[in-house]
Amino acid sequence: MDRENQLIERVRRRIPSRAKGLRVGIGDDAAVMSFRNGTEWVVTTDAFLENVHFLRSAHPPRAVGYKALARATSDLAAMGARPLYFLLALAIPPACTTAWLESFLGGMAAAARRFGLTLAGGDTTNYPSVVVNLTIIGEVDSGRAVLRSGARPGDLICVSGRLGEAELGWRLVQRGIYKQERRKKLLRKHFKPEPRLALGRWLVDHRCVTAMIDTSDGLSTDLGHICKASGVGAKVFAEKIPLVDVPHELRRMGLDPLRLALDGGEDYELLFTIPKRLAGRVPRHLMGIPITTIGEITRQKRIGLVGANGRRNPLHAGGWDSFRK
Amino acid sequence: MDRENQLIERVRRRIPSRAKGLRVGIGDDAAVMSFRNGTEWVVTTDAFLENVHFLRSAHPPRAVGYKALARATSDLAAMGARPLYFLLALAIPPACTTAWLESFLGGMAAAARRFGLTLAGGDTTNYPSVVVNLTIIGEVDSGRAVLRSGARPGDLICVSGRLGEAELGWRLVQRGIYKQERRKKLLRKHFKPEPRLALGRWLVDHRCVTAMIDTSDGLSTDLGHICKASGVGAKVFAEKIPLVDVPHELRRMGLDPLRLALDGGEDYELLFTIPKRLAGRVPRHLMGIPITTIGEITRQKRIGLVGANGRRNPLHAGGWDSFRK
Repeated sequence: MDRENQLIERVRRRIPSRAKGLRVGIGDDAAVMSFRNGTEWVVTTDAFLENVHFLRSAHPPRAVGYKALARATSDLAAMGARPLYFLLALAIPPACTTAWLESFLGGMAAAARRFGLTLAGGDTTNYPSVVVNLTIIGEVDSGRAVLRSGARPGDLICVSGRLGEAELGWRLVQRGIYKQERRKKLLRKHFKPEPRLALGRWLVDHRCVTAMIDTSDGLSTDLGHICKASGVGAKVFAEKIPLVDVPHELRRMGLDPLRLALDGGEDYELLFTIPKRLAGRVPRHLMGIPITTIGEITRQKRIGLVGANGRRNPLHAGGWDSFRK
Repeated sequence: MDRENQLIERVRRRIPSRAKGLRVGIGDDAAVMSFRNGTEWVVTTDAFLENVHFLRSAHPPRAVGYKALARATSDLAAMGARPLYFLLALAIPPACTTAWLESFLGGMAAAARRFGLTLAGGDTTNYPSVVVNLTIIGEVDSGRAVLRSGARPGDLICVSGRLGEAELGWRLVQRGIYKQERRKKLLRKHFKPEPRLALGRWLVDHRCVTAMIDTSDGLSTDLGHICKASGVGAKVFAEKIPLVDVPHELRRMGLDPLRLALDGGEDYELLFTIPKRLAGRVPRHLMGIPITTIGEITRQKRIGLVGANGRRNPLHAGGWDSFRK
């Protein structure tokens, strides 16, 4: 067997790759899938790149495998979709084809089982750095996917979890101050994010959400996406944002919780809007995750941040953008 | 607008991105698609990487864009499927975001129109080298996809086009002897391969093919894939293989047509098997493409190459494998 196919075979053995609707999985030119009547397909693609999104020296391969799949699957959570299948295009250096790959696949297999995903196809290439590309396929009842474009003036803006936690972890990694035992818990969200799949589906099932996005780039950028798609504006109350808990010693190093929350990417929480009259339908906690109302959609197309003093300042998109200078 | 989204917007403007069944395309967290009853979905993913598959110094960006999509779509031809949608995950250096990207997108748009593909989703990242990852989604009437696993002893082995042409072009590029005017036509197959979509569908519609693959890795490797999946062997007659036409001066440089045909990748021709009794159904030319019978499937699981002298030697998989030492 040639080496590329040996690798694909190893991937197949490690990651769940059989499912009822998957008529042809890994090992042919393409995967063949059937689907259920009354559903639509939800598909997304996501690149996870060494030295852009992770460092091989700092991120354990198991975390890389888990997070690669978690990131990509979060887009399905943001549509309220059920994950079904995924395809993995993996480029790795020869040095990563033994122990590194085993751990990577172990992390990805754990994520696949957790999210209910079956591996349907793959591609491997020898490359100087690790390049992970994932395609996730899910389903949603026809016409029920939640888009970014449904927010209306007066809708409340809600967010799950706490914001800025993933960015805090990433900053510690970048500064090389992440190995101390007391900082381990500060890395959790960065190393092992959880796509809010059950929450996304709950919101769809209870028909209370008008627009939704996952906070992959950061609140300031992602709220901008909702507002642009919906043709509306927003005001957010700084005091209401559920902020990352930053230890005092790190605050003194310039790590400001509000800044991390506004512009920090990769939290993979859900940011959504609900009509005011339906606000009662959404409890303060869902499946153990806090849900916080942080602001309101406005007719005026500006996005403002209201401070403790009641003053409103423009909230510019300052989140993750790999092309920013 | 942030820069990543500006790029995605440019991609969307250049490449066809609207289609009837595409309810939500580029610009939301994921694409949402509906499908027709009585069909199954065929999905494949493919990475096209700078310095592995192409050189930025040698390959015009328009050719990179066209070929990236052609390569990936060829997997659908090999299933007999109809292409519908594709997703593009593109990582590029800032230096490539202006003129290079325009030409790249121009080539990809031309390929998309030619193959009938609509862009449904995208992802862009700043990266030191160009990494193109494509996911292609197509459909096939339920149960009609042609797999690698259907070849039976006695079936004839057929191939479309000529083999080794793409490898010849690649060798000229690698040796830096591709710029001369007289060599331009030798590069065509390497720069602009054509997935055999119409041929693949014709074969499915005429129900004469038992197994099929596209020659992406090379005849010796790809025939091995069919034999392994089908649990059979094969004998191929060297004299019958439709060989690349190699000019005399290049033969003297060691470029042997038979070797190029056996182990050269990226021709993206169709290699398929048909029961002997149905051989009459397949004409010698289809849509202007020659179809050649080159051998026969055997019960014995070995793969042999029968030379002009009638002697049979083992045919080892010697095609494209990026991990081979």
